[in-house]
Amino acid sequence: MKLSSKNLDERIDTLYDAIVVGGGMGGLSAAIYLARYGLKCLIIEKGKGRSLWMQDLRNYVGLDPHTSGSTILNHGTKQALEWGADHLRGYVEEVTDEGETFAVKVKIGKKDSTYPIFRSKYVIAASGIMDNLPQLENMQNVYDYAGYTVHVCMICDGFDMWDQKAVLIANTESQINAAFVLNWFTPYISVLTHGLGSVSDTMKQKLADYGYPLYESPIAKFLGEKHQLSGVELIDGTIVEATTGLVSMGSVYHSHYLKGIDGLEWDGQNLVTNEMAKTSHDRIFALGDLKKGLNQVSIAVADGTAAATQIWRNIRRESVPRKWEENIKVPITV
Amino acid sequence: MKLSSKNLDERIDTLYDAIVVGGGMGGLSAAIYLARYGLKCLIIEKGKGRSLWMQDLRNYVGLDPHTSGSTILNHGTKQALEWGADHLRGYVEEVTDEGETFAVKVKIGKKDSTYPIFRSKYVIAASGIMDNLPQLENMQNVYDYAGYTVHVCMICDGFDMWDQKAVLIANTESQINAAFVLNWFTPYISVLTHGLGSVSDTMKQKLADYGYPLYESPIAKFLGEKHQLSGVELIDGTIVEATTGLVSMGSVYHSHYLKGIDGLEWDGQNLVTNEMAKTSHDRIFALGDLKKGLNQVSIAVADGTAAATQIWRNIRRESVPRKWEENIKVPITV
Repeated sequence: MKLSSKNLDERIDTLYDAIVVGGGMGGLSAAIYLARYGLKCLIIEKGKGRSLWMQDLRNYVGLDPHTSGSTILNHGTKQALEWGADHLRGYVEEVTDEGETFAVKVKIGKKDSTYPIFRSKYVIAASGIMDNLPQLENMQNVYDYAGYTVHVCMICDGFDMWDQKAVLIANTESQINAAFVLNWFTPYISVLTHGLGSVSDTMKQKLADYGYPLYESPIAKFLGEKHQLSGVELIDGTIVEATTGLVSMGSVYHSHYLKGIDGLEWDGQNLVTNEMAKTSHDRIFALGDLKKGLNQVSIAVADGTAAATQIWRNIRRESVPRKWEENIKVPITV
Repeated sequence: MKLSSKNLDERIDTLYDAIVVGGGMGGLSAAIYLARYGLKCLIIEKGKGRSLWMQDLRNYVGLDPHTSGSTILNHGTKQALEWGADHLRGYVEEVTDEGETFAVKVKIGKKDSTYPIFRSKYVIAASGIMDNLPQLENMQNVYDYAGYTVHVCMICDGFDMWDQKAVLIANTESQINAAFVLNWFTPYISVLTHGLGSVSDTMKQKLADYGYPLYESPIAKFLGEKHQLSGVELIDGTIVEATTGLVSMGSVYHSHYLKGIDGLEWDGQNLVTNEMAKTSHDRIFALGDLKKGLNQVSIAVADGTAAATQIWRNIRRESVPRKWEENIKVPITV
């Protein structure tokens, strides 16, 4: 059932089996499985997730490669609702571990916000990451290319950059190192630091050895038309020719709401999980980009399957087994 | 490119980066990723895999729940071919480890078979399992219900059995134990052993305690119409009423071709793999049902992603990095 500030009273006293923070591909997979295990679950989705940016989902078996992120997210949300999951548009502010349950505080609405608290036995952290993009005065200019011909994920889109002139936008030395992986797909790489950070002489020499020019002036604007990049203009007036780009500027991790939870093991910003996507906390699971491993739709979807299945197993094992009462006295038929 | 006995000469001297044994969901995912990494891969598919039996794929995010296995397999095969994978209909008889390469011997054609040998750097075992079904004289009677209202996977289809009268067809004690998981979905369980194996007094007592009748007579035929089960007739004349069924009779593992490989770690019939779907052999990967873990489409698809990515990383790290030759002497532009 679709929840909103208008009808959430109907569910505010529900003890959910699981609350899924994030309605991206991993969260939707978890919700579909939870619902099909007959468990009560609530997806809380803030909107504008990473997969919404995808114009084409090219490497997920069974979907037309031109399927956009928004299409598949809408479809998956409908699937989850149809199997019986609840779905709420809101922003999870805080999760408090109450021992047997979690209290999940949600902000609903940008204006006149309300802050209801939902409760669940398990929490699935599926809120993912958001890639940093170069900040320009006119952000629409960035959005005109990001997700089309300027990519954020080399594994996803390297193929589509094959042997093209590419800009790599990076602002730390370790991000610049992406050039030495990107060159599997194309060697025609120009490195742009957008005026951020400084580049060591060692890195400058390495880039020169590979023939990859380095531009340290900030970006003025992306050039091109109809989402097809043709180059990048820097504020010093230089125009760098390129038909594609990779932004490697790190990511923001959406895991603030877990910061108050004791006993979570992190590896940098990623949650450490086991093969069932369980974190070091027995009632918190983490999916996809938030956990260690590949940031791929297929991985998040499988994580959702695993997390939901483990939660079902736990709940099932603690439940009273169902007997066929009317049969209890029937003799065994041979 | 679609290969057959007619055109395989064009590829018989190709050293593939990877040969994918099995064109199910995991194998197709691996092939799509391999092709998009620009690697040469060959899928060898014998046909009639487990996912072909699915009439509805209900829990894979983004697909209509009424999508059949054959639809998604055909679609995925087309995807893989479009990105540049090769595909051959044939049966892998044997894989020989030659040190740096594998020799993969394939049987093509049921009559006048030919036995070409293909070579690759890596092998991805994606040939899955096949569920054992009760053997009746008229197997068409089994196929009329299997995959429709008689299921083989409780995680996949338990939801669709909810509170229905169900037959559990099992022939060892451990398979009969599925009743005590199936009762999460429905307590109206009749256990049929199809005349195979014997049931201990302890198990008989436990089933009686739960009110689950046990029938040890062999099955004569499934009853119903238009794939909708209404009951099962046993050869002793008993009719067991049921609108759904679960077959829990074990599976055949399609891994015969790996038996000659040294150094593979098995857990029972499952291959042990790491988080990148790599077996204990550095150049052999295993996906989905062949490896330990959940037998779910989403898991196999993610395994394919991981295996292809690790193979790409290995090959990339061993390759000569591509430089932008014409730029080598260009001074760094600031």
